[in-house]
Amino acid sequence: MGVCVIGASGYTGGELLRILLQHPKVEIRYLGSRTYKGRFLHQVHPHLRGFGLYRFSDPDVEAIPSSCDVVFLATPIEASLKLARPLIGRGMKIIDLSPAFRLKNPGDYERWYGIKHPHPEMLRYSVYGLPELHREEIRGADLVSCPGCIAAAATLALAPLAKEGLVDPNHIIIDAKMGSSGSGSRPSRGSIHAERFGVIRPYRPVEHRHTAEIEQELSSLSGRMVRVALSAHAVNNVRGILCTCHAYTLAAPLSVQELWRLYRKFYNNEVFIRLVRGERGLYRYPDPKMVIGSNFCDVGFEVDSHSSRIVAFAATDNLVKGASGSAVQCMNLIFGLEESLGLKVPPSYPV
Amino acid sequence: MGVCVIGASGYTGGELLRILLQHPKVEIRYLGSRTYKGRFLHQVHPHLRGFGLYRFSDPDVEAIPSSCDVVFLATPIEASLKLARPLIGRGMKIIDLSPAFRLKNPGDYERWYGIKHPHPEMLRYSVYGLPELHREEIRGADLVSCPGCIAAAATLALAPLAKEGLVDPNHIIIDAKMGSSGSGSRPSRGSIHAERFGVIRPYRPVEHRHTAEIEQELSSLSGRMVRVALSAHAVNNVRGILCTCHAYTLAAPLSVQELWRLYRKFYNNEVFIRLVRGERGLYRYPDPKMVIGSNFCDVGFEVDSHSSRIVAFAATDNLVKGASGSAVQCMNLIFGLEESLGLKVPPSYPV
Amino acid sequence: MGVCVIGASGYTGGELLRILLQHPKVEIRYLGSRTYKGRFLHQVHPHLRGFGLYRFSDPDVEAIPSSCDVVFLATPIEASLKLARPLIGRGMKIIDLSPAFRLKNPGDYERWYGIKHPHPEMLRYSVYGLPELHREEIRGADLVSCPGCIAAAATLALAPLAKEGLVDPNHIIIDAKMGSSGSGSRPSRGSIHAERFGVIRPYRPVEHRHTAEIEQELSSLSGRMVRVALSAHAVNNVRGILCTCHAYTLAAPLSVQELWRLYRKFYNNEVFIRLVRGERGLYRYPDPKMVIGSNFCDVGFEVDSHSSRIVAFAATDNLVKGASGSAVQCMNLIFGLEESLGLKVPPSYPV
Amino acid sequence: MGVCVIGASGYTGGELLRILLQHPKVEIRYLGSRTYKGRFLHQVHPHLRGFGLYRFSDPDVEAIPSSCDVVFLATPIEASLKLARPLIGRGMKIIDLSPAFRLKNPGDYERWYGIKHPHPEMLRYSVYGLPELHREEIRGADLVSCPGCIAAAATLALAPLAKEGLVDPNHIIIDAKMGSSGSGSRPSRGSIHAERFGVIRPYRPVEHRHTAEIEQELSSLSGRMVRVALSAHAVNNVRGILCTCHAYTLAAPLSVQELWRLYRKFYNNEVFIRLVRGERGLYRYPDPKMVIGSNFCDVGFEVDSHSSRIVAFAATDNLVKGASGSAVQCMNLIFGLEESLGLKVPPSYPV
Repeated sequence: MGVCVIGASGYTGGELLRILLQHPKVEIRYLGSRTYKGRFLHQVHPHLRGFGLYRFSDPDVEAIPSSCDVVFLATPIEASLKLARPLIGRGMKIIDLSPAFRLKNPGDYERWYGIKHPHPEMLRYSVYGLPELHREEIRGADLVSCPGCIAAAATLALAPLAKEGLVDPNHIIIDAKMGSSGSGSRPSRGSIHAERFGVIRPYRPVEHRHTAEIEQELSSLSGRMVRVALSAHAVNNVRGILCTCHAYTLAAPLSVQELWRLYRKFYNNEVFIRLVRGERGLYRYPDPKMVIGSNFCDVGFEVDSHSSRIVAFAATDNLVKGASGSAVQCMNLIFGLEESLGLKVPPSYPV
Repeated sequence: MGVCVIGASGYTGGELLRILLQHPKVEIRYLGSRTYKGRFLHQVHPHLRGFGLYRFSDPDVEAIPSSCDVVFLATPIEASLKLARPLIGRGMKIIDLSPAFRLKNPGDYERWYGIKHPHPEMLRYSVYGLPELHREEIRGADLVSCPGCIAAAATLALAPLAKEGLVDPNHIIIDAKMGSSGSGSRPSRGSIHAERFGVIRPYRPVEHRHTAEIEQELSSLSGRMVRVALSAHAVNNVRGILCTCHAYTLAAPLSVQELWRLYRKFYNNEVFIRLVRGERGLYRYPDPKMVIGSNFCDVGFEVDSHSSRIVAFAATDNLVKGASGSAVQCMNLIFGLEESLGLKVPPSYPV
Repeated sequence: MGVCVIGASGYTGGELLRILLQHPKVEIRYLGSRTYKGRFLHQVHPHLRGFGLYRFSDPDVEAIPSSCDVVFLATPIEASLKLARPLIGRGMKIIDLSPAFRLKNPGDYERWYGIKHPHPEMLRYSVYGLPELHREEIRGADLVSCPGCIAAAATLALAPLAKEGLVDPNHIIIDAKMGSSGSGSRPSRGSIHAERFGVIRPYRPVEHRHTAEIEQELSSLSGRMVRVALSAHAVNNVRGILCTCHAYTLAAPLSVQELWRLYRKFYNNEVFIRLVRGERGLYRYPDPKMVIGSNFCDVGFEVDSHSSRIVAFAATDNLVKGASGSAVQCMNLIFGLEESLGLKVPPSYPV
Repeated sequence: MGVCVIGASGYTGGELLRILLQHPKVEIRYLGSRTYKGRFLHQVHPHLRGFGLYRFSDPDVEAIPSSCDVVFLATPIEASLKLARPLIGRGMKIIDLSPAFRLKNPGDYERWYGIKHPHPEMLRYSVYGLPELHREEIRGADLVSCPGCIAAAATLALAPLAKEGLVDPNHIIIDAKMGSSGSGSRPSRGSIHAERFGVIRPYRPVEHRHTAEIEQELSSLSGRMVRVALSAHAVNNVRGILCTCHAYTLAAPLSVQELWRLYRKFYNNEVFIRLVRGERGLYRYPDPKMVIGSNFCDVGFEVDSHSSRIVAFAATDNLVKGASGSAVQCMNLIFGLEESLGLKVPPSYPV
């Protein structure tokens, strides 16, 4: 299968390449990067030295060879909005990692992104690229829009609860903690090691844009409006997201056994969801340290009888299940391959 | 002033010594440690090499010289329960860093600590050692019980809101993130560097014991029962706590200006509370990185119009304002010294 | 191929399993661990949840099924000394990760390990498991003894210089920096996160045991006695070793071009050696951050005209190329498989 | 004493302010920063919120009030070269933290800095600001030039050996490891957290400029030409330098006792030098973790009988003893104050 990656020089681009280079059915045909055109793979991603002499090119729609069956857009929203349509016109499947086509309601782009969406009609046929929720739609999709990294984790943690309508839909708190690789590779004063090391920094306590997609997905699952309050924090990791989701039970308190049943049923057979909840020990709940480098989303929960609360957790590697891994999982689905092909790799531990 | 420290070999003990060694009115007269009796200061706390040839002794009530005006108990709850009474009997002031005397209601010890309190009468005269809330009581106290590190931060973040009764007292979430020094210096498999480095680990998502004291203090401030849901996480820091407190407004939404007014009024002139909330920039909200090594509690807030929520933050150094610094602040009050004596030191940055 | 791992619960054991679980020709038949016998894989290595219901057994020689073609000993030296012989007697190939059979000269065990080697005759046929130096011997070996993690890196950095006899064999300094996973998973006061985080701690500045094997290998390569001075430091990483090797040139100074030629010639076609030396940029020299999770050893060098010195570098992931990856590389060689089978995986970056 | 700080917005500037704000004899009269002129202290250094409403001004020689007795230049070399002379002309004492006046030989500026020094005559009267070696000269100096951070540590580790002429002056290796704060606060791709976290990166293995001053100082002490080979590495810390100095003994091997005697004699009564060498335990040797936030330089050593080598260590906080702390120590000397005034503060541990 011929593959093109645009925006291949960033961190999600690098992870896409790491995965695709190992994928048994993939041939990389085009690497686009405006900044690094002309440079070789190992000059841009020194860790990939020894994996081929690929060269970066200007990300020009016309220059992408027709032999590319699929184009990954690891680009900012503006570039994705511009590139997706002509590429679909050329018959290529698009897997977009930007938020350009995630939201169904064009008005949400005005509310959350401050833009008038230039192609609202595309929102009707784009598919939200979370296979655990949209597997069948993804199989036939021309345009898949991968979730935001926090959105993917939070949605997977809360989906079983939302589906069953067991929690108060107006008092859901998502407290997210994440590593620095989620902010990309562009330098700024606040992102340098001396400033960013050791922080526990609230960086978007309100108005986080992923709110929109989480509400879209949970509302759709539960059949009623769900409202979430999301606060994101930067912590002293490079990789990893933990979403701690606090939700209040509506009626009678749920037992741990009932929650096990609920989550098991919802995620029955999901290859990349691991349910983690122990009775004791340090590894009772999900922790991103256990998934680094892998496409797993570890999901767990706890019951708080003191405050009629359920605490649901999801831990991912933000660059893999939170971005490039999910994207390849979607590619596998689109092309009728085994969903986990090239992806079911155990995490390295401890890192 | 003659000072004795029992439990001087742990991390809070070490911080107490660091502060007391610099305090212009203090003379250290007795250092008690069962494990390290006979050892010199620099053998137990190598970073304090060069600050005197103090020697550790067995923490025996009778052996503590009468010249000690105050005894700091940096001991586990069992030891504090045993030591406090006879020392008060000898006329010494007690500043206890364990939870032994924090809760007013003896029943709370059964509910949260699983013990029947052996000296319930002492709970009536012990004072909760948070000067910002109990300054006058501390001045005359014989027994001060310092807050838990998470409790201190969470209470300071929420106190102004609780006082005014502006938030829903049944839907308050406290999501705490903290460094490894809060777990003490005893080794275990889960605490070694390779296992603990890089975690974002939910270590007590429900049933955290500090819940009891936070509810005690906030209920007392607001004049009605306040219920909090506390979840604690271990992150990749040695020092520092950030408490992110999510609360829903009761009536009309509050503006940032109203919150500023509220917090300013409540913390007017408090020497160790710094209000941090900027309109832009990376340092808009409290972050423990800004207080490491100091006795400051940085407090901030944000308004979430999307979900009728206030997010209140408090950041402390868990070993200073969260333990030993507050303890010395109480000592200054008890003995009529300037409250900030020996404590108003700027944090080191960046660390 | 049937595989048994003894000592499967430690960090090198865990990495062996991570690699072997992905290896297309391997079937894991026996996991031995005294401490964890009876436990399932995911209880001991939670990150491997989802990769099979393997169970740990007591590491009993007789209990290991005959269907095991090879036994990995990820055990302390004492256990390896005891287990290797009877297992060879049962016709199994042994790949030992302890130092039990690394040194050719029995006297070196007295000098460096303080033990009289119980099986000196085994030292004659054991092979030092560094494929880049001993490939042909490994192919026919019954007993392969994998190098120490620092020894592997230092030897690979210095081998081309030693081979050509270009540096003063009496003034070679190896200054090693390494992560905490190299010290194993047993807890101690000095290994807990609060104590070990942020250190730059000289932990074995002299008398490091790896000295013996480095000298053995470099002396053998150069045909004369080489003496190295090794100092090891603990730094704030979980994984990774950097060996900085300082050597003085003997005669005329060498140019960068000559060194390129030398290293290229020596490591021509080596699949896991990557030569890294740029004229500019931040990634001019090897850095373990670029190899985490992979079996690569990045090797580089610089010329110091001021002090007639060559600085040679090697960077590895201590648990992979420094232990379990090399071990599997040896297994591939022993059994006539492609040397890189199951091993040529790109590192994750940034982690 | 009236004090002016130019370049007050960087990390050394921030540390200078932290120390000066606590100094009992200092009044800060002028803060110069081109970038931040007009801003308040807490806007540039948020951690110093609560320590006064100082405002930054353009660093104009004429604008500095005559009431300033001393000017600290925490500026790049170019600015120091321009500012020092006119300020001395106005009768102010200068303490420069740049390399502008460190080297006695003007030719060394061409060799190491690639510049022709514009004021070679100033090099004759500038004093190298390492009080442990130049105390008396500093007392009377008009212009003190503080050592580079690596140079200070390496020189203090090696000085006793150089003085006695006991080590081979042509085979001294200095292998330095340091934190990110030493690279300043300007952002670049390689300095962001995701790239810089977890590195063990050789960043200047040869041709490090501090070589020149170390050789100047050690040669002067030993009365003969000393040549050092310096290699610097970036490790995963914000603060801290460890210099590991490898030196070969010239004649008979030295014992640990002889080294103790030597170092004790040389550093007899030095308030900021702590000799650290234990027979056992984890804290046998200097580690910057033990000095963070303090002005101590911990010095230690070990004897390697295997390779006739001495390993000497020095650990400092690069921003304190490696920069701003030493600068204030010099100020105290110049003005006849107690040398440790405002500086003898214990480090925080663990951080």
